[in-house]
Amino acid sequence: MNIWDDVISAEEQKAYAAAGFGRPSGLGKRPALLIIDVQYRTVGTARKPFYEAIKEFPTSCGEVAWDAVEAIVPLVEYFRSRGWPVMYPHVAPKVGTEGGRLAEKVPAIMDVAAKGYEFPPAVAPRPGDVMLPKKHPSAFFGTALCSHLIDKQVDTVIVVGCSTSGCVRGTAVDAFSLNFKVAIPQECVYDRSITSHKVNLFDLGQKYADVLPTADLITKLQAIA
Amino acid sequence: MNIWDDVISAEEQKAYAAAGFGRPSGLGKRPALLIIDVQYRTVGTARKPFYEAIKEFPTSCGEVAWDAVEAIVPLVEYFRSRGWPVMYPHVAPKVGTEGGRLAEKVPAIMDVAAKGYEFPPAVAPRPGDVMLPKKHPSAFFGTALCSHLIDKQVDTVIVVGCSTSGCVRGTAVDAFSLNFKVAIPQECVYDRSITSHKVNLFDLGQKYADVLPTADLITKLQAIA
Amino acid sequence: MNIWDDVISAEEQKAYAAAGFGRPSGLGKRPALLIIDVQYRTVGTARKPFYEAIKEFPTSCGEVAWDAVEAIVPLVEYFRSRGWPVMYPHVAPKVGTEGGRLAEKVPAIMDVAAKGYEFPPAVAPRPGDVMLPKKHPSAFFGTALCSHLIDKQVDTVIVVGCSTSGCVRGTAVDAFSLNFKVAIPQECVYDRSITSHKVNLFDLGQKYADVLPTADLITKLQAIA
Amino acid sequence: MNIWDDVISAEEQKAYAAAGFGRPSGLGKRPALLIIDVQYRTVGTARKPFYEAIKEFPTSCGEVAWDAVEAIVPLVEYFRSRGWPVMYPHVAPKVGTEGGRLAEKVPAIMDVAAKGYEFPPAVAPRPGDVMLPKKHPSAFFGTALCSHLIDKQVDTVIVVGCSTSGCVRGTAVDAFSLNFKVAIPQECVYDRSITSHKVNLFDLGQKYADVLPTADLITKLQAIA
Repeated sequence: MNIWDDVISAEEQKAYAAAGFGRPSGLGKRPALLIIDVQYRTVGTARKPFYEAIKEFPTSCGEVAWDAVEAIVPLVEYFRSRGWPVMYPHVAPKVGTEGGRLAEKVPAIMDVAAKGYEFPPAVAPRPGDVMLPKKHPSAFFGTALCSHLIDKQVDTVIVVGCSTSGCVRGTAVDAFSLNFKVAIPQECVYDRSITSHKVNLFDLGQKYADVLPTADLITKLQAIA
Repeated sequence: MNIWDDVISAEEQKAYAAAGFGRPSGLGKRPALLIIDVQYRTVGTARKPFYEAIKEFPTSCGEVAWDAVEAIVPLVEYFRSRGWPVMYPHVAPKVGTEGGRLAEKVPAIMDVAAKGYEFPPAVAPRPGDVMLPKKHPSAFFGTALCSHLIDKQVDTVIVVGCSTSGCVRGTAVDAFSLNFKVAIPQECVYDRSITSHKVNLFDLGQKYADVLPTADLITKLQAIA
Repeated sequence: MNIWDDVISAEEQKAYAAAGFGRPSGLGKRPALLIIDVQYRTVGTARKPFYEAIKEFPTSCGEVAWDAVEAIVPLVEYFRSRGWPVMYPHVAPKVGTEGGRLAEKVPAIMDVAAKGYEFPPAVAPRPGDVMLPKKHPSAFFGTALCSHLIDKQVDTVIVVGCSTSGCVRGTAVDAFSLNFKVAIPQECVYDRSITSHKVNLFDLGQKYADVLPTADLITKLQAIA
Repeated sequence: MNIWDDVISAEEQKAYAAAGFGRPSGLGKRPALLIIDVQYRTVGTARKPFYEAIKEFPTSCGEVAWDAVEAIVPLVEYFRSRGWPVMYPHVAPKVGTEGGRLAEKVPAIMDVAAKGYEFPPAVAPRPGDVMLPKKHPSAFFGTALCSHLIDKQVDTVIVVGCSTSGCVRGTAVDAFSLNFKVAIPQECVYDRSITSHKVNLFDLGQKYADVLPTADLITKLQAIA
């Protein structure tokens, strides 16, 4: 029983399985938590339905974001209790000269109010966390994330935040390419399309990451000495 | 009328549109064609249904691959007639020491027969084409693709091949992040899941690339002086 | 007559020439100026001899920095008069969690006062310039510099600033690898060792860049239509 | 007493020391050996003086290369005895379409005979070693070297081969930026200019790597549990 079963048909899942995809990668011994783009600009300053939420920030995802934040809280607290690294790749405020292709595809994204770049208190960064301002989908692109992970001898990245079909996916693909083990707790990521959310989790689980319930992930993390 | 309309609901599409996604990026003046992973390992040596095809190569995509190859032919011929660069990011034969995370997620992918790495004649490379052996989803990862594009002063990449949800997508996201304009002719890419194929085209079209019919793309290319 | 002639013997220069090194790359048609690390931390707030200067900032280079700033002024003004891009890769303030190997090799570099990160007015950034905070030698490492250069269709980078043996060289090597043409106006770069300065200019000129007097470079730039 | 003492004056070394450069980084617990470009094209097929050697391959370095190969032998044997990874970033044969800036700066480098790309038997790769064909100075550029190092949980790279002022330096700077500890055994690297060789070792030792006698390095490696 997978979150994507109502979108990806049994026949399609069978085709992927027959071709040998979707085996588990497992966890290593030194995980880091990457909390991606969980800022007011995707969450909103108050829980509201999607069409209300985008009146505040066009990039807001509405209620699914609030549900995900609630799911992230115990995970980040567990990481802090273990002293494991928590890193915050996050959207840096846009500058007029730096639009590039993004300003063409999504012009509204260039005008988000300053408040949108702040973090909801429940999952906000604390002193000592690594802050990684970024301007592209993958948290590795144009940042020193890889250097930080190597410095802390991380072998496994847990990716949470948003959007599932954007920065979460881009980050997971690069982490996989760099040979980090990747796990995605499915309640901790969110998107403005539920179909795209589910299909991206399917893609990620088939090829790049272990996608699993947050509770199962915490159990597996607890088994790390 | 989009290829993804039967999978992504009108309501979901409305949500993305309301948030401002999906504007066109357009083409520049110096395009390059990236033909990704169109090798026997994904096409098969003969047109066969999917479950027949994977008996030859577990990574084969079956009939959709043959349809895509047919669609690619006029595009690559048009590029050659204009003298524009045609580049071949392709899967390099796997070496035992180099499995990494890929060998964990998709172990069958490590044992493809040598024949699988050859190119179908209809869209095979010619002398002077840039060959880019790769080991990861994105054609930019661990290759000199970006150096080649800069050397040839390319401003636009046309991405074709497979899989839509794997290397095509990974390449398009990186090309977008590097500020190349990206276009994907929808009949020229293929995947072993039709749902994933459509949703990935939706994602790409909303955020990273212009997704359009091949005939429309060729018309737009003809308008380049 | 080269700036390195008193350090690299005629015999050594002959050996490089015999092996075929050191041909000119020339300029392209769309140059960008990269002003690297010209901040008070390397220049000092007033012109002082080296051992006086490092009392203010341990990373200060003393009088050679002031000479270089004077040489940079007409170059940056020429770029502004042509409307060509001027970009500022610069050292971002150090954060305790982010020391990595740098904090091991050069611990003093972690404690520079905030004033040290500001720019001398004569060559300071203006609105519309691309700002690139960085934490590593090469201006390309962990930044979106390459994306900016592609967005602006740059084919040639002019590298100035400091140090010749550090960030100037690291940036030039990466620019060369990416297939940008690279030119270094020799009076516009500086270092805390004159020997290392000269030998690095020799290395750069032999393999990666055209090293030439600033006046000659401006003449060549004036020839660009 | 350092190898660069006759080139970098005491006064210059004092200036670097006063500014806080040149502290040791030390070794970690999981080293990898990178043998860079030790191929006939830089060594020659027989020990000959420089001007004789370049008649065989213009990129040959002459007798210093043979001395370095002799110094590398016990180091690579020690790595093999410990089962630590040995990796071979090496120059891939040049292809006409791929010259880029390199073909402009060093045209002779494009025409090296096939034999030049082979490895001298004393330090040749063995089955299981990671092979990394490359086309640029840094062994990280356009290769999957970083992915391999992460896969093998390497925290320290030992860089040997040639040239000191080219690929050795470029690789060391990138390894440093990625937060790997870097060590360079000084007898195991070589260059066609002795001055450039020494000054590059000085630069590397001041900012990016621990430069030390090979015997001292082996002693330190023996202390790793």
